[in-house]
Formats: sequence, C-alpha cells, structure tokens
Amino acid sequence: MTNISKKSKIGKNTIIAKSSKILDNVIIGNNVTIEDFCVIGFTSLNNKSKKLIIEDGVKINSHSVIYLDSEIGKNTIIGHRVLIREKTKIGNNVQIGSYSDIEGYCTISSYAKLHSNVHIGQHSKVMDYAWLFPYVILTNDPIPPSEIRKGVLIEPFSIICTRTTILPGKKIGFGSFVGANSLVNKDLKAEMIGSGNPFKERGNIELIKIPGKNEKAYPWHSRFYKDYPKNIKEIYENFKKKFI
Amino acid sequence: MTNISKKSKIGKNTIIAKSSKILDNVIIGNNVTIEDFCVIGFTSLNNKSKKLIIEDGVKINSHSVIYLDSEIGKNTIIGHRVLIREKTKIGNNVQIGSYSDIEGYCTISSYAKLHSNVHIGQHSKVMDYAWLFPYVILTNDPIPPSEIRKGVLIEPFSIICTRTTILPGKKIGFGSFVGANSLVNKDLKAEMIGSGNPFKERGNIELIKIPGKNEKAYPWHSRFYKDYPKNIKEIYENFKKKFI
Amino acid sequence: MTNISKKSKIGKNTIIAKSSKILDNVIIGNNVTIEDFCVIGFTSLNNKSKKLIIEDGVKINSHSVIYLDSEIGKNTIIGHRVLIREKTKIGNNVQIGSYSDIEGYCTISSYAKLHSNVHIGQHSKVMDYAWLFPYVILTNDPIPPSEIRKGVLIEPFSIICTRTTILPGKKIGFGSFVGANSLVNKDLKAEMIGSGNPFKERGNIELIKIPGKNEKAYPWHSRFYKDYPKNIKEIYENFKKKFI
Repeated sequence: MTNISKKSKIGKNTIIAKSSKILDNVIIGNNVTIEDFCVIGFTSLNNKSKKLIIEDGVKINSHSVIYLDSEIGKNTIIGHRVLIREKTKIGNNVQIGSYSDIEGYCTISSYAKLHSNVHIGQHSKVMDYAWLFPYVILTNDPIPPSEIRKGVLIEPFSIICTRTTILPGKKIGFGSFVGANSLVNKDLKAEMIGSGNPFKERGNIELIKIPGKNEKAYPWHSRFYKDYPKNIKEIYENFKKKFI
Repeated sequence: MTNISKKSKIGKNTIIAKSSKILDNVIIGNNVTIEDFCVIGFTSLNNKSKKLIIEDGVKINSHSVIYLDSEIGKNTIIGHRVLIREKTKIGNNVQIGSYSDIEGYCTISSYAKLHSNVHIGQHSKVMDYAWLFPYVILTNDPIPPSEIRKGVLIEPFSIICTRTTILPGKKIGFGSFVGANSLVNKDLKAEMIGSGNPFKERGNIELIKIPGKNEKAYPWHSRFYKDYPKNIKEIYENFKKKFI
Repeated sequence: MTNISKKSKIGKNTIIAKSSKILDNVIIGNNVTIEDFCVIGFTSLNNKSKKLIIEDGVKINSHSVIYLDSEIGKNTIIGHRVLIREKTKIGNNVQIGSYSDIEGYCTISSYAKLHSNVHIGQHSKVMDYAWLFPYVILTNDPIPPSEIRKGVLIEPFSIICTRTTILPGKKIGFGSFVGANSLVNKDLKAEMIGSGNPFKERGNIELIKIPGKNEKAYPWHSRFYKDYPKNIKEIYENFKKKFI
C-alpha cells in the first residue's frame, strides 16, 4: 500500500482507509480501524526516530492527526478531527471526542472519557474514569506567554461539566463534580461540588439528586455502567482509598 | 467514479469532488455540490441499511462528515469540517457554519442558521428562522454521565448570541434574544431578552435599539432580509400566533 | 502534478503534499511547506480572478483551507484544520493555531500569535506581537443578525487569555492583559489589566507578579523571547510611543 510507510508495522485484521497516511515509525496492533483522511505518525519536530504506538482494537475516526512519540492504549476510541501531539500517553478504553485537541506532554488514563471539543493543555493529567464534557479547557501557563507549564490534575471519577476552564496547576479531587461554565481558580476537594465564576465549593456530591426522585445522583457509578467493567463499584472504592 | 458507491444515487448537475467519498445508501438530488475531503454516508453503527438523503441544491463544503440515517433539505448550506451524526433532520435553506458539531437525534428546521462552531446535543430542536451564533452549546444531560437526554428547544425567530450554553430541557421562547456568554438554566418567555450567569430575564426585545438611533432593533425581521423569503414579516406574524 | 493548477505558481524548495489541492490563482513563494489534505485557493464567491499570495517560508499544516483573495506573510505558521477566508491579510512570522477560524476581511499583523481554536470575526484587527489564547472570540455584530460589522481592535503586545469574548467595536489597548473567560463590553486602556463579566479594569499590568517571586510579570517581553527578534524590548518601546 503506497499510503503506508515501509518503516511502520501493521497488525492483523487492521483496516486502514486508503486515503489515510501512515508515516514512518508507527506500530499499529491488531483489529485497529483507521478511517479516511487521517495522518498517523506526523511530526514537525526533530524526533523522527521516535515511535507512535497504537495498540490492539483502537478505532480512529476520519480526519484525525496523531503525532509521533505517543502511545494509545487498547480499545481506545478517537473521534473525528482529533489532534494528538507528541508525548501523549493514552490508556486503554479511553474515548476522545471529535474536535478534541490534545496538545501533548500529557497523560489520559484508562476509561477516561473526553466528549467533543475538549482542549488538553500540555502537562495535564486526566486520571482513570474521569469525564470531561464539551469545550472543557485545561490550561497550563500562569503568566502567558511564558515557558512555565503547570498542568492541571483531574483525579479519578471526577466530572467536569461543559465549557469549564481550569486554570494552571489546579487539582480536581477524586469523584468530584464541577458545574458547567466554571472558571476553576482553586483546588476542589474529593467528592465535592464546585461551580461558578468566582469558583466556589458547594457541598458534597451527594446533594445532587436524580431529577424527579429523592435519590442521590453521585457517585455516578451507582447508576451509569455503559462500557465500563462490571466491578466498577469496587474499582471506585479501591481508588477512593488511595485518594481520600 | 471509484469514490462513489454503486449503492448510492446521484442526481443531475451534481458535482462531487473526486477526493470525497460517497458511501453506501446515500441519495443525492440535483444541483448538489460536495467539496473536497468529505465523507458522506458514514456510520459506525449497525444501521447500514438506513439511508442518507441530501435534497436538491445542497452545498457541502470541504472536510465535512455526514452520517447515514439523516436528511438534509433543499438548498441547505453546510460549512467546512461540519460533523452531522445519525437521525438528524435538517430542513430547507438552513445554514450550518464551519466546525459545527451536530450530534444527531435532532431537528433543525427551515431557514434556521447556525454560525460556526455550534454544538447541538442530541434531542435538541432548533426551529425555523432561529439563529445560533458561534460556540453556542445545547446540552442534554442533567446529571452527567447518564442515559437521560432532555433536549433544548429553540422556538422560531430566536437569537442565541455567541458562546451561550443552554442547560438540558430548557426552552427559548419565540422571537426572544439571549445575550452573549449566558448560562441558561431556566426557560425564557417569547419576545423577551435574557442574559448572564446567573441567567435573568431583562425585559421585552423592543428595549434593544439600533446603535445610534432611537429605533427598535427587534424583532429583527423588520431590518434584516438577506436570503429570506420576501414575506418574512407575514411568516413571523403567523408563527407568533401559534407560539404566543 | 495533477493536484496543482496550471494557473498557479510555485516557488523553489517548496513541498506540497500530493493529497493537497492548489487551485487557480495561487502564488506560492520559496521554501513553503503544505502538509496533507489542504485546499489552497478555495472560493465560493464570484472572485475567481483574485489571487492568494503565500510568501516564502510559510508552513501550513494538514487539513487547512485558505480562500482566494488573501495574503500570508513570510515564515508564518498555520496549524492543522485552520480556515482562512477571503480578504485576510496576515503579516510575517505570525502563528495561527490549529482549529482557528479566520472569517476574512481582517488583518493579523507580524509576530501576532493565535493559539488554537481562536475565532476572528470579520473586520477585526490584531496588531503586531499580540497574543490570543485558546477559544478567544472576536465578534463584530452589535445587533445580530444585521449587516453591521464593527470589528475589534487588539493593539500591539496585548495578551487576551483563554476563552475571552470581545464584543463588537471594542479596543484592547497597547500591552494590556485580559484575564481568562472575560466578556469585554468596553475598551481597555493601554498597559492595564481587565477581566471578568461584568468586565472591569483591575489596575496596571505591573501588578501581576511572576509566581513565587516579587518580580513583575508584565510587560512580558522582559522575560519571554521565544522566536522573537532580539531587539524586542526596543520594538516594544517604539510601539509604546505611538500608542500611549
């Protein structure tokens, strides 16, 4: 195939659209699907000996660009027009929504989900089972422009609602909930609600109820299971011991 | 043409760039233009027997992706890099701006206009002659993540200014005006101004004046006609009878 | 090359990916790089005799679309999926981040930098050495929808932090600093800090300190030099004389 570099390796049962380009030093596993008009293994840096590793079962939708010197774990799903730059480490079973812009030098751990148009600044860390909704921005520069990069830390099982901006170096604690349109300028403790601009802590996550019922909506693992391991409750409790 | 599936039908005087792909079960009318690097009839679902219908006179700009199981009405214009997912019903003479993300299971009625980078969550309904400006987001999940989808309703002739976020299940009334950067957490009545975070009703739309004049700026049909039917005033009054 | 129009001119040492299209009336200089899946010289208007001029040393990343009747100055870098419409005049050494949407009829002067996903409405003017961070929006219509276009003016060396919206006709003064998520509804004077919604002036830029130090962070030219001319301090002072 003229669209696949001879310096790259492609696994079994892997389907790559003819219109997509696989450049040098890309290692693609088995059962991977890459849709049309993607550029896989791109670089504009002096790092052409670095590799891009795409593990088994990954699905990459059309028009996406993935740079060399990154890793994408098993069964991860990448949307349309996603951009993933160098030194991005993505775990297994992650979802990256369409139009998301992953600026590199960052980690997105297993089962984390980014909805569409999420912007991940360099040196961010999005931990397991976290959720970032559309147009969330993680920043990193406290005095722009500068060479300082203070990444944001999103701990496991946290929910960051749509259009929230998180300022450099802030930490969103385990299992917490950040309301829509927030401008987060301070850390949020574990299992707490935070929202607004100015950003304020609003109490424990158990205060949020399921609409029309008197049942608590959070932690969300008690009512939402789609595509998660069956023992998600146990996983939550195990992470909780480490983070609280 | 090798880029057009034999299972699809193409009308007369229709121009499709050779670099674009027309997949199976796409029905394209007459006088349609599809620019470069588009994927038309995409699906990742088990619905390959479903159709995508693109009616006469539609124009689709480059790099757009349209899923199977949707309909696009006559003379509608789709910008660059638009994503339209399954079960989207778009009327006639609609405009969808570049970078807009239509998540599916939604309706966008005739003469509605979306400027660039608008995000339409599932189960939204954007009615006739409504305007959504850049980076407007219509959400749908009241307790994310959940399986609940409470769509937003935008009634005819409403104006939603740039960067507004509308929370799940909220209704923007007929002919109303929502100011820039609002976070809409309650319904807005017909022909009223609403803005801010916290979102507040600010009075009747007639309070907004044309800059430098003592003439009212709204309803906008009295001063803006571009690409609309000549009897737009009559259309406004007819809709008003139904919605007020 | 079948992907390059015979009505266009290509300079020496210029590399154009085979998957990209160079349409009619494009004048490309020397040492230019154009990556995959770009459309260069696009138009949907009745202006096919107009030219697009791309000067020496320009780099255009993948999936970008540039319209006829614009100019891009020397050594400017264009990210992935950028859209640049007609009557855009871009200076030398500019950077336009990925996903940015330049709506045309605007000027972006030398050494200005736009981070990713910046939206430049028509009739905007971004002056030399200004910085616009992710998801900044420059608007232009005071009573949408209308035919009125009151552009935003960003004076030299200004900093507009992430997710700021600037309302039509507003001016951000020389060397000033606008905080994240602001909704700018009034002019900001030179070398001042402004932020918030409602937008307020917060004092002189010298009030912002480098984190952990008692040194002033602004003007930024005293501590950040990357890719700028060596005499940036002198340039700042010369511009200051004109603008203050």
